[in-house]
Amino acid sequence: MTRRLEEIVARFGGDLRGDGSLIISGLATLEAATAGQLSFLANPKYRGQLATTRAAAVILSAEMVELCPAAAIITPQPYLYFAHVSQFLAEGPRPPAGIHPSAVVESVIPASVSVGPQVWIGPEVELGENTIIGAQCRIGAGARIGADCRFYPGVTVYAGCRIGCRAIVHSGAVIGADGFGFARTPEGAWVKIAQTGRVVIGDDVEIGANTTIDRGALEDTIIGDGVKLDNQIQVGHNVQIGAHTAMAGCVGIAGSAKIGAGCTVGGAASILGHLSLADGVNISSGTLVAKSITAPGTYTGTVPFMTHDDWLKNFSRLRHLDAMADKIRALEKRLAEIESEKKT
Amino acid sequence: MTRRLEEIVARFGGDLRGDGSLIISGLATLEAATAGQLSFLANPKYRGQLATTRAAAVILSAEMVELCPAAAIITPQPYLYFAHVSQFLAEGPRPPAGIHPSAVVESVIPASVSVGPQVWIGPEVELGENTIIGAQCRIGAGARIGADCRFYPGVTVYAGCRIGCRAIVHSGAVIGADGFGFARTPEGAWVKIAQTGRVVIGDDVEIGANTTIDRGALEDTIIGDGVKLDNQIQVGHNVQIGAHTAMAGCVGIAGSAKIGAGCTVGGAASILGHLSLADGVNISSGTLVAKSITAPGTYTGTVPFMTHDDWLKNFSRLRHLDAMADKIRALEKRLAEIESEKKT
Amino acid sequence: MTRRLEEIVARFGGDLRGDGSLIISGLATLEAATAGQLSFLANPKYRGQLATTRAAAVILSAEMVELCPAAAIITPQPYLYFAHVSQFLAEGPRPPAGIHPSAVVESVIPASVSVGPQVWIGPEVELGENTIIGAQCRIGAGARIGADCRFYPGVTVYAGCRIGCRAIVHSGAVIGADGFGFARTPEGAWVKIAQTGRVVIGDDVEIGANTTIDRGALEDTIIGDGVKLDNQIQVGHNVQIGAHTAMAGCVGIAGSAKIGAGCTVGGAASILGHLSLADGVNISSGTLVAKSITAPGTYTGTVPFMTHDDWLKNFSRLRHLDAMADKIRALEKRLAEIESEKKT
Repeated sequence: MTRRLEEIVARFGGDLRGDGSLIISGLATLEAATAGQLSFLANPKYRGQLATTRAAAVILSAEMVELCPAAAIITPQPYLYFAHVSQFLAEGPRPPAGIHPSAVVESVIPASVSVGPQVWIGPEVELGENTIIGAQCRIGAGARIGADCRFYPGVTVYAGCRIGCRAIVHSGAVIGADGFGFARTPEGAWVKIAQTGRVVIGDDVEIGANTTIDRGALEDTIIGDGVKLDNQIQVGHNVQIGAHTAMAGCVGIAGSAKIGAGCTVGGAASILGHLSLADGVNISSGTLVAKSITAPGTYTGTVPFMTHDDWLKNFSRLRHLDAMADKIRALEKRLAEIESEKKT
Repeated sequence: MTRRLEEIVARFGGDLRGDGSLIISGLATLEAATAGQLSFLANPKYRGQLATTRAAAVILSAEMVELCPAAAIITPQPYLYFAHVSQFLAEGPRPPAGIHPSAVVESVIPASVSVGPQVWIGPEVELGENTIIGAQCRIGAGARIGADCRFYPGVTVYAGCRIGCRAIVHSGAVIGADGFGFARTPEGAWVKIAQTGRVVIGDDVEIGANTTIDRGALEDTIIGDGVKLDNQIQVGHNVQIGAHTAMAGCVGIAGSAKIGAGCTVGGAASILGHLSLADGVNISSGTLVAKSITAPGTYTGTVPFMTHDDWLKNFSRLRHLDAMADKIRALEKRLAEIESEKKT
Repeated sequence: MTRRLEEIVARFGGDLRGDGSLIISGLATLEAATAGQLSFLANPKYRGQLATTRAAAVILSAEMVELCPAAAIITPQPYLYFAHVSQFLAEGPRPPAGIHPSAVVESVIPASVSVGPQVWIGPEVELGENTIIGAQCRIGAGARIGADCRFYPGVTVYAGCRIGCRAIVHSGAVIGADGFGFARTPEGAWVKIAQTGRVVIGDDVEIGANTTIDRGALEDTIIGDGVKLDNQIQVGHNVQIGAHTAMAGCVGIAGSAKIGAGCTVGGAASILGHLSLADGVNISSGTLVAKSITAPGTYTGTVPFMTHDDWLKNFSRLRHLDAMADKIRALEKRLAEIESEKKT
C-alpha cells in the first residue's frame, strides 16, 4: 500500500526534510531503491550510497542528512524507524472474521476471530479477540491463545498450552509435543515418562516455521515476553527462556536449560540440558554450550574451515594435542638443565 | 486423575510404607511437590531434599527410606517405577472410536480405531485395533500401521511404509519421503534416482515432532523395536537403527548408516553415511561421527567454548597446528644435538 | 512395473549384450539382486560382485563387460543410466486430475491439475498443467507454481511465492515464511521488519521434507534451476543459491548468503550470513563456513571424535593453544641463544 511521506512522519515522528506530499510506494535499500521508494541509512559505512541513491526519501540520523540528495526523515534510530514503517506499509487486508465452513471448531470463540479453511479447534479452547488462525491449524483441547495473534497455516498447538497476545507463529511449528523423557529398564528398554507440564508463552513472541517447543515433564516449559525464535529451533522440555531473547535458525536447547533475558543465540548453536545462561549472553553461531555461563558477554566455540588438504594436515594433530603439550614440557625441562649447567 | 497410594502399589508392586489410602493427585519433584503429590528419589545426591519435601509420598530405594518423613513406596528402581506411575496417572479419556465426518478415508479400518477431523487415509491402508489417528494426519496408499498406536495431529506417512504396534508419532513427523539420491550428468545437473524402498518401523517406537525418516532407495530404511527418536531428527535413506537405541533432538543420520542396538546419540550429533556403529555406543551431543565405531563406549568430538576474545586467540592457532608440530620436532632435534655435543 | 530389457535400451540407449526380451521387474544392487532384477556397476571397486550376482542384467561400462556373467547394458555413465531407468520403472498411476471435493480452491486452475483431499488453495493462485497437489497442502494467495510439479501432502507455500516447472516438494516443507529480521529498541525489545520479498524458485528443483525457505525482507530469496535440497534445511531470507547446487540434510544457510552454482554442501553444515561462495565449492558435512570462499574446491572444518577419555585429555588443550604457541616461541629463542653462544 502507498503512503504519503507526511503520513509516515505523523505516525512515527522524526523530522521531515523535503516534500511531505511525496507518495511512498515501498521500501528498498539505498542501492536498489527506485523512484517512489523510501530507504534508510542505519550503518554509516553505507553513507557513500547516499550520493547515487534513487530513493524518494531516506530515513537517517541528523549527522548524515547533509549527504542526502533526496527528502529525509531524521531520527536518532533509523533502523528502528525503518522497522516500524515496514510494518505500516505492509499492512494488507485481514482475512475476514468468522469461521470458514470447512473448519471444525469445538469451542466457542469470539466473533472477531478469523478461522481459516480446514482448521481444527478442539474443545475448551480460548482464543483472544482478533486472532487469525490460518488454514489447517490444529489447536488441541484446552489451549488458550491471546488476542491479536497470527497463526500461519499448519501450526499445531497441543492440549493445554498457553500463548500470550500478539504472537506470530509460522507454518509447521509444533507447540507442546511431549518432551523426551524415559527411564531405562535393566534390560535396556525405555519406559516413557508421561509429559504432563505445558508450554506457557508470553506476549509478543514470534515462532518460526517448523520450530518445536516441547511441553514440560512435570512443570512447564516457559517462553518469556518478546522472545523471537527463528525457524527449525528445538526447545526441550522444562526449558525457560527469558524475555526478549532472540535465537536464529536451527538452534537446539536441551531439556531444563534456563536461558536469561536479552540473550542472542546464533544459528545452529546448541545448549545442553540443565545449564543456566545469564541475562545478556550472546552465543555465536555453531557453538555448543556445554556448561553454564554466569556473566554477560559473547561466547564462541567453533573451528575454522580450510581447504580439505590443509584440514587433513592440521586437524589430525588434534588427536595428539596432549602429546604435543607433553613434548613442550619435556623440551622446557631439558633446556632449563642446559641453561643451569652453563651458569654453574 | 487421582489414585490411592495402595492402588499404585497394587498395580506396580514395591513395598508400601505408610497410609495406603492417601489420595495421590499428581507427581512432582521433591522440591516442588505439594500436599497430595507423589514424588521420587532416584539420584542419591538429592537425598537432602527428603527432609523438607511436602510430598504425600515418595518412591525410593530401601537405603533411603529412613530419611523419608512421608509415606514411601520402596523399590530398587525408583525412576523406572516413577515412569510407570506417570503413565498411570496421566491416563485420560481416549478420543472416541470411529471416523470424524470431516475425514476422508479410502480404506476399510477397524471400528475401534479413532480417526480425527480432516484426516486423509489413502486406499489399501491397514490400521491395527485401537489406534488413534489425530487431526489432519495423512496416511498414504498401502501404508500399514499396527495396533494401539497414537498419531498426534499432522503426521505424514508416505505410501507403502510399515509401522509396528504401540507407536507414538508426534506432529509434523514425516515418514517415508524420498531419500536424497541423484546421479550427476557430465554437465553437472542432477538426475533423480527413484526411491522405491520403504520405511519399516518396529514396535514400541516413539518419533518426535518434525522428525523425518526417508524411505530407502532400493531396499528399506529400518527402525528397530523400542527405538526412541526425539524432535527434528533426520534419518536418511537405507539407514538401519537397532532396537532400543535412543536419539536426542536435531540428530542427523546420513544415508546407509547402520546404528547398533542400545545406542544413545546426544542432541545435534551427526553420523555420516555408510558407517557402522556397534551395539552400545554412546555419542556425545554435537559430535560428528565420520568413521565407523566397532566397540561400545562413549565417543566425543566437540570443542570447548570460551569468551569470544579467548577464542580468537586460541582457535586461530588451529590453522597452524601442523606448523607447531613441526617446530616442536625441530626443537627436539636441535636440543638433542646440543645434548650430544656436551656428552662428547 | 515391469519392462523388457530391449524397451529400456530403446528408451535410454546403450549397447545391449544378451537377450533383450528379458523381463525386468525391478532394480537392485549387485549383491541383493534376485532373478528378474536389473543391477548396475558404477564404482569399479565392486567389480568383484559381478561374478556372483544373480541379476538378470547389469548396467556397466565397456571395460567391465567381460566380467559380467549376465546380460548387460553398456554405457559410459552406468550410474546416470541407472538413475534414468529407476524413474522409468517407478512410474506409477497418477492421481486423477481434478479437485477433490474436500479441497477448498479459491482460484481457477487447469483441468489437468490434480488437487488432493483437504487442500487449500487461496485466491489468485496460478498452477501449471499436470501439477499434482497432495493432500492438505496450503497454497497462499497469489502464489504461482509451474507445470508438472509434484507436491506431497502437507506442503505450505506462503502468499506470492514463485516455483518453476517440474518441482518436487516433500511433506512439511514451508516456502515463504517470514525471514528473521528485527530492529532492537534501546530497551532491548525487538521490532519486526515486515518481510515483503518473495521466494522465487527455478525449474527442476527438489525440496525435502520439513525444509524451510524464508521469503526475502525487501528483495527476493532466489533458488536457481536444478537445485536439490534435502530434508530439514533452513534457507534464510535473501539467500541466493546458484543452479544445480545440492545440499544434504540439516544444512542451515543464514540470511543474504550467496551460494554459487554447482556447489555441494554436506549434511549439517552451516553457512553464515552475507557471505559469498564461488561456483563449484564443496563444503564437507558439519563444517561452519564463517567467511566467503572465492575459489572452487573442497573445504572442511570439523574435529575428529575419539573416546570420551581421549577427548578430555586432548581437547582441554584447546583452551591453551595460544599459550602453547608462546612456549614454543620462547623455547626457540632460548635455544637460539645457546646455539649462538656456542658459535662465539
